[in-house]
Amino acid sequence: MCRWLAYSGSPILLKEVLYEGPNSLVGQSLHSRMGAEPTNGDGFGVGWYGAPDTPGMFHSTEPAWNDDNLRELAGHISSPLFFTHIRAAIGSAVQQTNCHPFRHNRWLFMHNGYINEFATIKRDLTLAIDPSLYPLISGQADTEVLFYLALTFGLENDPPAAVEQAIGLVEAVAARHGVPHPFQGTIATSDGESIWAFRYSSEHKSRSLFYTTDVPTLRKLYPGRELFREFSDDARLIVSEPLGDVAGVWNEVPESTYGIVGPDHAEMRPFQPKAPTTQVPVRA
Amino acid sequence: MCRWLAYSGSPILLKEVLYEGPNSLVGQSLHSRMGAEPTNGDGFGVGWYGAPDTPGMFHSTEPAWNDDNLRELAGHISSPLFFTHIRAAIGSAVQQTNCHPFRHNRWLFMHNGYINEFATIKRDLTLAIDPSLYPLISGQADTEVLFYLALTFGLENDPPAAVEQAIGLVEAVAARHGVPHPFQGTIATSDGESIWAFRYSSEHKSRSLFYTTDVPTLRKLYPGRELFREFSDDARLIVSEPLGDVAGVWNEVPESTYGIVGPDHAEMRPFQPKAPTTQVPVRA
Amino acid sequence: MCRWLAYSGSPILLKEVLYEGPNSLVGQSLHSRMGAEPTNGDGFGVGWYGAPDTPGMFHSTEPAWNDDNLRELAGHISSPLFFTHIRAAIGSAVQQTNCHPFRHNRWLFMHNGYINEFATIKRDLTLAIDPSLYPLISGQADTEVLFYLALTFGLENDPPAAVEQAIGLVEAVAARHGVPHPFQGTIATSDGESIWAFRYSSEHKSRSLFYTTDVPTLRKLYPGRELFREFSDDARLIVSEPLGDVAGVWNEVPESTYGIVGPDHAEMRPFQPKAPTTQVPVRA
Amino acid sequence: MCRWLAYSGSPILLKEVLYEGPNSLVGQSLHSRMGAEPTNGDGFGVGWYGAPDTPGMFHSTEPAWNDDNLRELAGHISSPLFFTHIRAAIGSAVQQTNCHPFRHNRWLFMHNGYINEFATIKRDLTLAIDPSLYPLISGQADTEVLFYLALTFGLENDPPAAVEQAIGLVEAVAARHGVPHPFQGTIATSDGESIWAFRYSSEHKSRSLFYTTDVPTLRKLYPGRELFREFSDDARLIVSEPLGDVAGVWNEVPESTYGIVGPDHAEMRPFQPKAPTTQVPVRA
Repeated sequence: MCRWLAYSGSPILLKEVLYEGPNSLVGQSLHSRMGAEPTNGDGFGVGWYGAPDTPGMFHSTEPAWNDDNLRELAGHISSPLFFTHIRAAIGSAVQQTNCHPFRHNRWLFMHNGYINEFATIKRDLTLAIDPSLYPLISGQADTEVLFYLALTFGLENDPPAAVEQAIGLVEAVAARHGVPHPFQGTIATSDGESIWAFRYSSEHKSRSLFYTTDVPTLRKLYPGRELFREFSDDARLIVSEPLGDVAGVWNEVPESTYGIVGPDHAEMRPFQPKAPTTQVPVRA
Repeated sequence: MCRWLAYSGSPILLKEVLYEGPNSLVGQSLHSRMGAEPTNGDGFGVGWYGAPDTPGMFHSTEPAWNDDNLRELAGHISSPLFFTHIRAAIGSAVQQTNCHPFRHNRWLFMHNGYINEFATIKRDLTLAIDPSLYPLISGQADTEVLFYLALTFGLENDPPAAVEQAIGLVEAVAARHGVPHPFQGTIATSDGESIWAFRYSSEHKSRSLFYTTDVPTLRKLYPGRELFREFSDDARLIVSEPLGDVAGVWNEVPESTYGIVGPDHAEMRPFQPKAPTTQVPVRA
Repeated sequence: MCRWLAYSGSPILLKEVLYEGPNSLVGQSLHSRMGAEPTNGDGFGVGWYGAPDTPGMFHSTEPAWNDDNLRELAGHISSPLFFTHIRAAIGSAVQQTNCHPFRHNRWLFMHNGYINEFATIKRDLTLAIDPSLYPLISGQADTEVLFYLALTFGLENDPPAAVEQAIGLVEAVAARHGVPHPFQGTIATSDGESIWAFRYSSEHKSRSLFYTTDVPTLRKLYPGRELFREFSDDARLIVSEPLGDVAGVWNEVPESTYGIVGPDHAEMRPFQPKAPTTQVPVRA
Repeated sequence: MCRWLAYSGSPILLKEVLYEGPNSLVGQSLHSRMGAEPTNGDGFGVGWYGAPDTPGMFHSTEPAWNDDNLRELAGHISSPLFFTHIRAAIGSAVQQTNCHPFRHNRWLFMHNGYINEFATIKRDLTLAIDPSLYPLISGQADTEVLFYLALTFGLENDPPAAVEQAIGLVEAVAARHGVPHPFQGTIATSDGESIWAFRYSSEHKSRSLFYTTDVPTLRKLYPGRELFREFSDDARLIVSEPLGDVAGVWNEVPESTYGIVGPDHAEMRPFQPKAPTTQVPVRA
């Protein structure tokens, strides 16, 4: 339904990863290999961390493959941590307020997938958002509601617990309404230091999610490759699908798992949604 | 904050009224005379009734003055009843889902003005919308919430009573939150047969609203004017501000008043908001 | 590189053919079967004849598949003769002035294909356009240059001869510059009465072009099909590729051939480009 | 017809000058004080120099005042030399390829004003562009033709001489066609090191042009102002009209004059167009 990419490492120009490879992210906007739909042409978004306190954002309703501004910005903006998302809209309008990543203060959030029968459960989910966050909702996307639910459940303090509760609430509300397979997808969120990436679906057939092998290992595998020399030791890409076919580079995140990529560590843990105990939770 | 125009009469090309006059509606997008803001360049919309059951709509985020598609459509679409709205955004995004007129089945709805401190009271107002209508909200505009409130309160059966309750609820909720002067503006709504136009503000200093003198009288006043010969006897324009300066053509709608223009009659009555008695009303 | 559709017959709503069939034209914007590229998402255009002297036009840079305005207009505009074009840009910007169909007075013109190495020969081709037409060029597309060349060579008087000379000039100029395979594609043009459709490429491997079997025959073949009862006897569709798979409906236009569909006749003739004899021809 | 701003000095975030002051450039898009038209809402553009060889560009067809992407980029991109332009279109389409600044390799070019009766003389002017540059023309704007003429006449070697010849050619061609007052406006161009700014019109009633007093003097005048402490000693703004009303800050460039602002000097000289001697000049 969408494709995304998250980068963490030494600062690089966005174009180094957006337009590179036989299956580059921008190329996937025209023809992805592993997406539920091959075309992801309903707008895109970039969020990047830099010197200012809040990350920058660029959202467009045009297909990424023909957007001259994206090509310009990708060639002039460098960042140590950025998100890019290309969209295949299902049900909601093609407008900038529906483009990922979404932002709240220093946090970015993006998603590939959907909340099933969102129209049926949207009202109950929206009511569970902290009233102080409610006026900030600016679009119609299921992901934006999920983001504000995660913020409501403490994303800024404990991202895995908050996402577990947000998806847990989705599943609990869906059960009340008889909606099957309520959540599907992969999620990335960041505070500008670490990236948390989640792979989960209620039916346990989740959209694909991959991460790159650590750079020192890649350098040993491919001593001649210039690209691997450019990346810093701690550089990582997390992507909906591999950008190329080089053996040993791309590793699949297992079902019902989330990973953390931080400045000095990277690990994976099991993911299990948990319905929140209070009906309308109070933000910390 | 916006400007609008509603036409009812024999079918005419939209361009006959959109681009005509020294103060044409499209001209007002660049420079209106009586608007709170001179420029109304944050998108526009057209809704028109024709052969199909539901009225057609064309929404754009571009300024009306430079939109080639609007000029084309206005030169090729004729209709016996149409709405046009040019927008000066205050607070919500410039996107098609925020453009007036809004539509539900055969009903169109548009508004010049605002709900004061909308962010503060949006959640309470949205909760009062009938849950079956809730998923249909597609933008962020205060007017869209007002439209669904009016539908919740029976717009399709008794438009004046429904608008009175919708604005009554706005004022009641605002009072609970300490929001002063909660409603400001003029509203037009139609079912394709009649037009209802409202002028009201909580502080009784409402945005301007005008309607044209009946055509037979205009023909007597100006026997040489070709334009008045082209219009049918029952043709009426209702506008935020006069399109020109011809004496005797434009009449102001008084404060706290609404008018009805139907196929065979036109009248004005006093308007007084009434808070709905039930908290979450049930749609007929 | 693009896909198009031309309709002639009794007036129908545009949506009757734009959104119909397992391979509808709007569907082809997301995934065409026979196009050089499967995705045709770089804007689209509609041109339709109605009561006014000049045909109406609607151009958009958005993909056709997600354009709400196209869906609205297609559901409310009916016409006895219209063109629709979905674009896969190659080299020129995605902007309305590059969208087909192009218009001059009552004439419409659209094209699927390209002029090879257009940048190399653009200047010479543009210089051959009648100086009185030159200021009307508003975009960068090779097709627009071809259209103004055809107008220069008398499109309004003898369309086949004018297109033969326009393409003949393209081939002659290309030969001077050593550009191989200069012209590729299919073209449709109309004056609002007849449609002329051309299939030709310098290398004789032209893009596909199909037309529908006459409606009385289709009614005999498929007596139960409602769609064929709705069309008038003389209704014809000319398309880049079939909209569906019903046997006996779609007939391929042969290589190097053009067809004429008029109010009372339809025929096909061989097409052979002819370089114009005068260097800078004078318009009638 | 447009408004623009050029900055040179120590690197600053674009927002420091785009959104600052009672008459900020973005504010001028909605209501300029000294422009031929108060509204400059037909798109905008930014060009900035940074680490890569060629300057970055961001062009949009939206009014600057409501563009969220501009606000984001201005808050995250810092540059020691950048151009910003807001457009009031006269005659040519609102599309990105008509937005200033225009770029060729390291050169940027922007203009406020017009070539009079451009349609009449466009063909002759375009023919004078070096054939190797001709295919690079991507829009319809008179300014783009002027830019490629200046490049043809050696902009990259001697900017004042090239602009003198380009405008000289405009005046010579206009004279042949009987077009009065052929050139009007102000121009800025840069190679990333220096800025050249021109004020000239054939009728000697040129659009306004201002530059800021040198920063050390401003600091003496206003010892308490933080803004003047932030700017480097050599920082300069060149603008269509002052961004504010502070006495002593803004100095008008005289009629028929150009100025150079370089890393270590700034000066003004008289400007006088000179028709080129050769008909179709050869680029160095």
